[in-house]
Amino acid sequence: MFGRYLDTLKCKGGLIYNITNYVTANDVANILLACGSSPILSDEIEEVEEMTALSDGVNINIGTLNLRTIETMKVAGKKANEMKKVVVLDPVGVGASKLRFNTSLTLLNEIQFDVVKGNISEIKYLINSSGSCLGVDADKADEINEEKIESFIEMIKKFSRKINSVVVVTGKYDFITDGERTFIIKNGRSEMEKITGTGCQLSAMITAFITANPEMRLEATVAAVATMGVAGELAWKEMNKSDGNMRYRDRIIDNIFNMNGEILDREVRYEIR
Amino acid sequence: MFGRYLDTLKCKGGLIYNITNYVTANDVANILLACGSSPILSDEIEEVEEMTALSDGVNINIGTLNLRTIETMKVAGKKANEMKKVVVLDPVGVGASKLRFNTSLTLLNEIQFDVVKGNISEIKYLINSSGSCLGVDADKADEINEEKIESFIEMIKKFSRKINSVVVVTGKYDFITDGERTFIIKNGRSEMEKITGTGCQLSAMITAFITANPEMRLEATVAAVATMGVAGELAWKEMNKSDGNMRYRDRIIDNIFNMNGEILDREVRYEIR
Amino acid sequence: MFGRYLDTLKCKGGLIYNITNYVTANDVANILLACGSSPILSDEIEEVEEMTALSDGVNINIGTLNLRTIETMKVAGKKANEMKKVVVLDPVGVGASKLRFNTSLTLLNEIQFDVVKGNISEIKYLINSSGSCLGVDADKADEINEEKIESFIEMIKKFSRKINSVVVVTGKYDFITDGERTFIIKNGRSEMEKITGTGCQLSAMITAFITANPEMRLEATVAAVATMGVAGELAWKEMNKSDGNMRYRDRIIDNIFNMNGEILDREVRYEIR
Repeated sequence: MFGRYLDTLKCKGGLIYNITNYVTANDVANILLACGSSPILSDEIEEVEEMTALSDGVNINIGTLNLRTIETMKVAGKKANEMKKVVVLDPVGVGASKLRFNTSLTLLNEIQFDVVKGNISEIKYLINSSGSCLGVDADKADEINEEKIESFIEMIKKFSRKINSVVVVTGKYDFITDGERTFIIKNGRSEMEKITGTGCQLSAMITAFITANPEMRLEATVAAVATMGVAGELAWKEMNKSDGNMRYRDRIIDNIFNMNGEILDREVRYEIR
Repeated sequence: MFGRYLDTLKCKGGLIYNITNYVTANDVANILLACGSSPILSDEIEEVEEMTALSDGVNINIGTLNLRTIETMKVAGKKANEMKKVVVLDPVGVGASKLRFNTSLTLLNEIQFDVVKGNISEIKYLINSSGSCLGVDADKADEINEEKIESFIEMIKKFSRKINSVVVVTGKYDFITDGERTFIIKNGRSEMEKITGTGCQLSAMITAFITANPEMRLEATVAAVATMGVAGELAWKEMNKSDGNMRYRDRIIDNIFNMNGEILDREVRYEIR
Repeated sequence: MFGRYLDTLKCKGGLIYNITNYVTANDVANILLACGSSPILSDEIEEVEEMTALSDGVNINIGTLNLRTIETMKVAGKKANEMKKVVVLDPVGVGASKLRFNTSLTLLNEIQFDVVKGNISEIKYLINSSGSCLGVDADKADEINEEKIESFIEMIKKFSRKINSVVVVTGKYDFITDGERTFIIKNGRSEMEKITGTGCQLSAMITAFITANPEMRLEATVAAVATMGVAGELAWKEMNKSDGNMRYRDRIIDNIFNMNGEILDREVRYEIR
């Protein structure tokens, strides 16, 4: 079902412009290459309009934002909207500082995003403007169990309709909603949290998937999330006794390099609510 | 003896806030995850107080400092002191420019660090305000042989008492002193110098180890240094003929991911002076 | 023939100062260590003159340039000229924005570079001030076939004489000219384009090779290009079925770590025009 979106991306490619953090910039660029896209990174406001115009999609990640790059993010997003290009927001650590929260709100107010992706703590913080946010990682207290799942889905559907974006919430299960339909992806492994930047990598991939499949925004987003989860599972199966988070990181990206739609459709486990 | 500090860290974790360079930021984040901590990175002064308050320990590394981030470092250090949080300084390449030297002196004057860690050339430069400092690597002329060892230890003990910090000097042997006792760690391999950022990784780990073992600052620092050295040895044993510095880097972090107190206690070679 | 330059570099080393992008900074530092050099990275103008004075060669890469670092690049280049140090320019994505183009022109006007290296789209853009430049990657339309090869060589020789620098053009074949002689390196694999930053790594290595072989600027540059290409081929032979671009990246650098002049001379395939 979702494999076709991966195959289309691997075939069509696309140039993805990333305003992202310096911690995971290299992995972001390599995962974009692994899934068939070309990356370009820049955070200089003097060239942001041209970069946006040149690219097929824009990935905005506030992981190591600063006052200079926040302005660049705003211009990139507005230009992307103006030119009807795909634009995705990853509000990394939105609850960790007023600056991150205010920046995220401003971006959400001024820019129409195709997708907003965060872990459960980040998305809850965006919705409730409060909560526990331990740095850039999800808080255990925010875990979703079966009882809370219905009300959680209602909450993110409402948020999705409010901001008119696909909303992606990552965690043990990943939720993807456009406000009407909600997909739950049950792939992935908890050990992926032991790698820095799997979330940043996913945001970049989502941008790439939608860029290559512009008519199917929700499904393409689900396909990106599923690709990451399936790669995390396949990579884990290849792990040797002495391997740790570094080689797990590389194996995940390498699995995406080698993945195709057939593998994705065989391995994906999902539910529609 | 030191294994317990690693086990405590792997169990307790802790959020480590890093103001560090963009060259090795990814490795720093991944080694923190490998040893049980969570990393957060930011260099924006507008959020530095909140980041410091949120975190359990602060790691300041001047590797790619600039005028903007130097101010952030100062505020982070002062806030950490005020809130009695762990704070560690890695004066990367302190002898390479007046800016690095003056920044290091200012930080040392205005902030009470728990640990100051450098290679032998960096620490000698800090002590003597002169010497040979070839970029960010230790100078061969600064190597310590058996004859010079006693006077060297006296020198770093005196420096430790002066700045009231644990001082760590890395090299063929690693020295860790609190001004009274001095530990010498004899693990590690010279090939570790062929990887960029093992020093930056160590500073981050030291911050994590002390954060998790706040009552045992000296011993926890020794444990961090020993963990790095032991990982360097175990990783080297796994090297294949075609492996080089890239896979050595990954194997070291992966060994830390898989290490526990038992392995550390079995492999550590140390001396107390 | 070129192996001697690699052996000399591995023996002599040298400190290479890099003003480069944050996407591939870690790989740049590690490849410099792999080929026998020491890296230092900084983009702060307050220390640029000292860094340049301290180093043996300067590598300027505009990959994530900003208004602040552009000024640093200018000072570094002028200081390198003044002190007769090696200085290399990598005009990453020069056709992607006016800022990149104008910065490259200014740098070329104000600084005498030893080498200017780009992919075919970047070099054509520099020469013609126009063309197709899809981000940081070469455009397929710019590929050189046998018929176009003579006129292409004339064009880059003329450009080389005009700017009085060795010009390196990477692609399926790599061209290296000093305006008189032109070497064509036929090593390398197209899969290297699926790794972010192989170009940035090459610029750094070129700086290192010339620094260690200052009397043989053209040949040392050819040796650097050949080393990268041969490493790309040898690394590919080691690839397992599950490997992708991440492990290919590591294998290439590791092959350089293990390479010597004998291997390079055995594997290089080149032509002189």
